[in-house]
Amino acid sequence: MEFRVRKECKSSKARLGEIVTDHGEFETPVFMPVGTTGAVKGVSPDEARDAGVEIILANTYHLYLRPGHELIEKLGGLHRFINWSGPILTDSGGFQVYSLSKLRTISEEGVTFRSHVDGSSHFLSPEKVMEIQEALGADIIMTLDECAPGGADHDYVLNSVKLTEQWARRCLAKKRDNGQSLFGIVQGGTYPELREMSARGLVSMDFDGYALGGLSVGEDRTTREQVIRFTREFLPEDKPVYLMGVGTPEDILESVGIGVDMFDCVLPTRNARNGMLFTNKGKVVIKNAQYADDSSPIEEGCMCYTCSHYSRAYLRHLFLTKEILAYRLNTIHNLHYYTQLMSGIRQAIREDRLAKFSRDFYTEREEDL
Amino acid sequence: MEFRVRKECKSSKARLGEIVTDHGEFETPVFMPVGTTGAVKGVSPDEARDAGVEIILANTYHLYLRPGHELIEKLGGLHRFINWSGPILTDSGGFQVYSLSKLRTISEEGVTFRSHVDGSSHFLSPEKVMEIQEALGADIIMTLDECAPGGADHDYVLNSVKLTEQWARRCLAKKRDNGQSLFGIVQGGTYPELREMSARGLVSMDFDGYALGGLSVGEDRTTREQVIRFTREFLPEDKPVYLMGVGTPEDILESVGIGVDMFDCVLPTRNARNGMLFTNKGKVVIKNAQYADDSSPIEEGCMCYTCSHYSRAYLRHLFLTKEILAYRLNTIHNLHYYTQLMSGIRQAIREDRLAKFSRDFYTEREEDL
Repeated sequence: MEFRVRKECKSSKARLGEIVTDHGEFETPVFMPVGTTGAVKGVSPDEARDAGVEIILANTYHLYLRPGHELIEKLGGLHRFINWSGPILTDSGGFQVYSLSKLRTISEEGVTFRSHVDGSSHFLSPEKVMEIQEALGADIIMTLDECAPGGADHDYVLNSVKLTEQWARRCLAKKRDNGQSLFGIVQGGTYPELREMSARGLVSMDFDGYALGGLSVGEDRTTREQVIRFTREFLPEDKPVYLMGVGTPEDILESVGIGVDMFDCVLPTRNARNGMLFTNKGKVVIKNAQYADDSSPIEEGCMCYTCSHYSRAYLRHLFLTKEILAYRLNTIHNLHYYTQLMSGIRQAIREDRLAKFSRDFYTEREEDL
Repeated sequence: MEFRVRKECKSSKARLGEIVTDHGEFETPVFMPVGTTGAVKGVSPDEARDAGVEIILANTYHLYLRPGHELIEKLGGLHRFINWSGPILTDSGGFQVYSLSKLRTISEEGVTFRSHVDGSSHFLSPEKVMEIQEALGADIIMTLDECAPGGADHDYVLNSVKLTEQWARRCLAKKRDNGQSLFGIVQGGTYPELREMSARGLVSMDFDGYALGGLSVGEDRTTREQVIRFTREFLPEDKPVYLMGVGTPEDILESVGIGVDMFDCVLPTRNARNGMLFTNKGKVVIKNAQYADDSSPIEEGCMCYTCSHYSRAYLRHLFLTKEILAYRLNTIHNLHYYTQLMSGIRQAIREDRLAKFSRDFYTEREEDL
């Protein structure tokens, strides 16, 4: 993987970058939709690409449990298995172990847990996580981390930072020279000195990129921004910075301004399935009665497949009758909204007008309120 | 609508025909997938078309209840509302009133029933059904019929035939000269003399086509074939014959041989959502363990989108993890199977080799058993 900074914003820490992988290149800041079990929920790979998606994230935890990394490797790797020829990032599975599985026990060696699918017992270590991610064959892979719960006390988070650093070292030691890029994950909760410790420790190991983990776990937005801004200072300028699991369009815009290059979140896809659509003027809750006879598209001027062919009235009808097509058309629009947002942000950085872009972004929403 | 017979089979009653509508033409025998509430479940209109679908059926009952025919008319009619520019057939809603709704009361005037959605009370008469279907604007519309339950006695079915004929006459009287074609529906259960009475009565009114209703309601296959064969003799050769709600590939092949031109059934779409896939060698139940590491497509040589891009192993994985994409990819394949079957049947009629086509059809299955 190569990462090049193409342009730096004059009024903020934002930058326009470029990442080149064996499966294609893309510009940053970039948003990665989540393809949990090997499919971006609701759409086909072709549709994701048509909606502007350039890189997707897949969950190691889910793919390890079903259908299993060995099977995927045997069938030619994840790209081939899921019919997505572009770049893929896999997470380490750590976060899902903490959020989804039962009866987890963490030791220095690794983490034992029970599958949320069938209750079977499993053990993930840094080495195992590397083995799984190598078998899957994503372009960017992540170290195993320990994600402290929101509100954890200083001692807990200190231990979590130490364990995360040890595990990162073991992941790096296990890393093969196979074209995959490995990112380290900075932990440390909301404690500045622990974030600094975590960042310094990881940076000394020289990863291909750095992720900010352990956020969006209950802290308020101001605190999160402070943590990102503070931590960002300890990360090198020549490596991409990835904020895991974030977020809303507002979160992304703010985070770009403090130097984040990569994002992933289930929001556009999950909200789509719940009938909540993103537009430049704010959210559209498609089931609302006001759209019953509305012949206009979700958003006037939107070039997505859904807005090019379907009315709000039809989308409301599909949603109320629980047609599968509803989830899909909604997802296409929301993905397109996110990719257009990112493309707008990149263009604004390129043209030295991110501050104005940001003002316009909020103004358009206010007008609608 | 124009209907022309292009070729008659020498060894059976099968014929190759052509139907021209305001929304395009297609050849018969044809299969129409069911777009219940205004969407062929699981796929987009583009995908249905790519899978070879030329005409779809939509259910008047469902669209009348949700979102309402007046709304659809206001938004430019059904074709525009659902983004399907090809021919559409709407049924009269009669069958759904009998199979889905509650507390129905049939009188000479019409049928009163409670909605299966919200329990609200509704009244459908022949005139109302015409009004609804005109508002929807399908190319082919159906008369309101009374579909006697399977096993109904002679007196019940006799009354049902008489009522169906009266209602057909009232539908015809209400019919406007608006480019829509109206089909009459022959009832009569499994009683030959009642089928004859029903057919003769309707034929004297000169409809644009004739449907065989009240079948696939519990009678055995031999009986059904006998009823179709017998009834078919009383229907004119210069009008299309439509067997409602049938059926399996075998049912269709047999029925073509006794002179049926049009079919509709939920089987390809519903089975797809249940993970049952049609192939020339028989059925594939995709969840079966034998497909876990099967890198081949559902059917070797199949040119559908699903078979061109995905393995049985991936489809099994998507199905087991309940990904929306599973239902869609399965539906695309099954629709393609049905359209290919019909296209194969038409080509065989054209080339005077339907008997051989039929033998090969069964032989390929037997080899697999």
